[in-house]
Amino acid sequence: MGIMKEKTKESIALKRKEKVKELFKDLGSKVYESLDNGYYPEIEFHSRSVKNIVYDSNLKQYVLGSKMVKRDAQNIKHIRAFTQLCWLAYFANKLLAEGRTSTLRDVYYSSQAYSVDFSDQNESDEIITDLEVILERAREDFNIYPEERSAIFGDLTIEYTVPGYEGRRLNLASHPDGYLIGPSLSTAEFIDTSAKMVIAVEKGGLFTRFVEEKVHERFKALIVDTSGQPPRSTRYMLRRLNQELGLPVFILTDGDVYGEHIAMVIIQGSANAAHLRELTVPNGKWIGVWGSDLIKYKLPTEPMTEADIKRTKELLLDPRYSSGIWRKELNVFLKIKKKSELEAFAKYGLTAIVDKYLPEKLKWAKSE
Amino acid sequence: MGIMKEKTKESIALKRKEKVKELFKDLGSKVYESLDNGYYPEIEFHSRSVKNIVYDSNLKQYVLGSKMVKRDAQNIKHIRAFTQLCWLAYFANKLLAEGRTSTLRDVYYSSQAYSVDFSDQNESDEIITDLEVILERAREDFNIYPEERSAIFGDLTIEYTVPGYEGRRLNLASHPDGYLIGPSLSTAEFIDTSAKMVIAVEKGGLFTRFVEEKVHERFKALIVDTSGQPPRSTRYMLRRLNQELGLPVFILTDGDVYGEHIAMVIIQGSANAAHLRELTVPNGKWIGVWGSDLIKYKLPTEPMTEADIKRTKELLLDPRYSSGIWRKELNVFLKIKKKSELEAFAKYGLTAIVDKYLPEKLKWAKSE
Repeated sequence: MGIMKEKTKESIALKRKEKVKELFKDLGSKVYESLDNGYYPEIEFHSRSVKNIVYDSNLKQYVLGSKMVKRDAQNIKHIRAFTQLCWLAYFANKLLAEGRTSTLRDVYYSSQAYSVDFSDQNESDEIITDLEVILERAREDFNIYPEERSAIFGDLTIEYTVPGYEGRRLNLASHPDGYLIGPSLSTAEFIDTSAKMVIAVEKGGLFTRFVEEKVHERFKALIVDTSGQPPRSTRYMLRRLNQELGLPVFILTDGDVYGEHIAMVIIQGSANAAHLRELTVPNGKWIGVWGSDLIKYKLPTEPMTEADIKRTKELLLDPRYSSGIWRKELNVFLKIKKKSELEAFAKYGLTAIVDKYLPEKLKWAKSE
Repeated sequence: MGIMKEKTKESIALKRKEKVKELFKDLGSKVYESLDNGYYPEIEFHSRSVKNIVYDSNLKQYVLGSKMVKRDAQNIKHIRAFTQLCWLAYFANKLLAEGRTSTLRDVYYSSQAYSVDFSDQNESDEIITDLEVILERAREDFNIYPEERSAIFGDLTIEYTVPGYEGRRLNLASHPDGYLIGPSLSTAEFIDTSAKMVIAVEKGGLFTRFVEEKVHERFKALIVDTSGQPPRSTRYMLRRLNQELGLPVFILTDGDVYGEHIAMVIIQGSANAAHLRELTVPNGKWIGVWGSDLIKYKLPTEPMTEADIKRTKELLLDPRYSSGIWRKELNVFLKIKKKSELEAFAKYGLTAIVDKYLPEKLKWAKSE
């Protein structure tokens, strides 16, 4: 096992938790102060309207522009959203205090316990996103998690911070089927690892293959199953592994434009999350399966459908795909009009993807 | 911790593995013997045609009737399927010998490594099911697993039998986000548990809620997330927990006919798997959310759609729904034309489902 950098010994996860509690306190204090001073309280934050979402080519991700919106308790049109927002902040703060987690759907139904009116879950989801913008924090930081889970495996010792498990440690190589990435793993401290990289793979079947073929030992890697487009908590975990442990993140997807887009969203994020920096891995690398790999590795393929081709053309208009490997490979897919899958390597034996493809692509990625 | 019954000390998982290897040997020997004796080899097994799938009201599940089909190497029409079947048996036997696992999709692509022709994955899937019928074993027993995974949590100590982990033990209460149920857990020995029951819940969000509210301690339960209609390996695990540990299995779903059907498939199985007994929990109990609970617990509801109503009417024609709670509740749904979800209990507080609903329904289930 390697020795962790001093940085992580300072209890990053706990500090983040404390910081979020402070942000809630600040938000509440601002509202109370206005009231104490005889003003109508108001809350101002960056607009998430389509026009205010711009691509930042330095940051290599979508960000919010300078346009602001206001929720003003004085304005009768704002009162509904203002009230919903205050209730949500109260509710999320309570979750944090009690060490409970919740889902978007739970929040919607919980509002009914307080007779706070949301016409449907879309409306409460929107307010939750507003709160993310205001606090500049992902909703996972205030204990609202997605229901979907994907998994991780490898030599990483973590220490829990969730109630009932504080201080307990676990090594993530001890269960070969993998550990779910849920609230307790998302908030755990990273204590020690011998890993030199993270390999995120799109499919559960390949995740199991990688464990069986000891990719974690042979490549000193943590293996993450993204289960298709990864749940937010998995993107959050990938970022933490990258930022806190300094591990490079390599992403392996099916050989089609949907796979390419999975890698893109992990690396550069989405327009929907333009207000967040906590879900991206800007220096991550897509190690295939590229369009050009279909030819190079003589993989079994299927023809792209009309829908696949339409999707490729849409992506070509997206500023994230304006250059580099991203654009090049979209054009290859469009030219050959073929697609393939990770399992297709089995044509050359079940271990071909680990024995041949993976080392070649990792070599490329490291030389980049 | 309780003391496990003697039965489980006899290494059930390893015995099952040995038995499957024997079955493969027998199948191969039969083919070789025919050849040695100058006969064309043939393999006979129960037909899976729709007409041969009958409902057995004693077993309370679909079973195959007496009609047999043959794959005869002498018959030119049979040669393709006979060859595919022999190759598959060879390949699966190799997987077992090497301790590797595979998916349906992997098998399809692997066939290309041997120049065995399948026109598409459907064809190879069919042959895999034929092999299940012939060996009377679930394909998980010959290391072909679904890609999907769901999760388990609670006080159960297991011992791995997979290569590299043999003899290692793990307690499934040590990671509060849950353990994936994959090949290594499916084939593990059960060593020790203090659990008195299994509670399977349809949704990941509720699974996390149950862990946070310590359902595993308060109700001495193992908690299983089915993630909607459970992957086969999860059904297989539920059966093992029920059969090997003698634990009752209680199933908690959304309050709609799809939830009811999830419980039904766990308990009585499906027509597709009429040839298997390894995926059912005949004495399992559906503890809701029932149609009548929507009224009794004053849950927030949504109107059933036309598709929901159509589905309900289809299920009413299904012999599995001919009596008891199954039929009664379908009729309630059809009458009130409303549906609800597990999260709807949050209207009465996030813990209402654990504090109030669960104890009441478990009391009912135990008195049944």
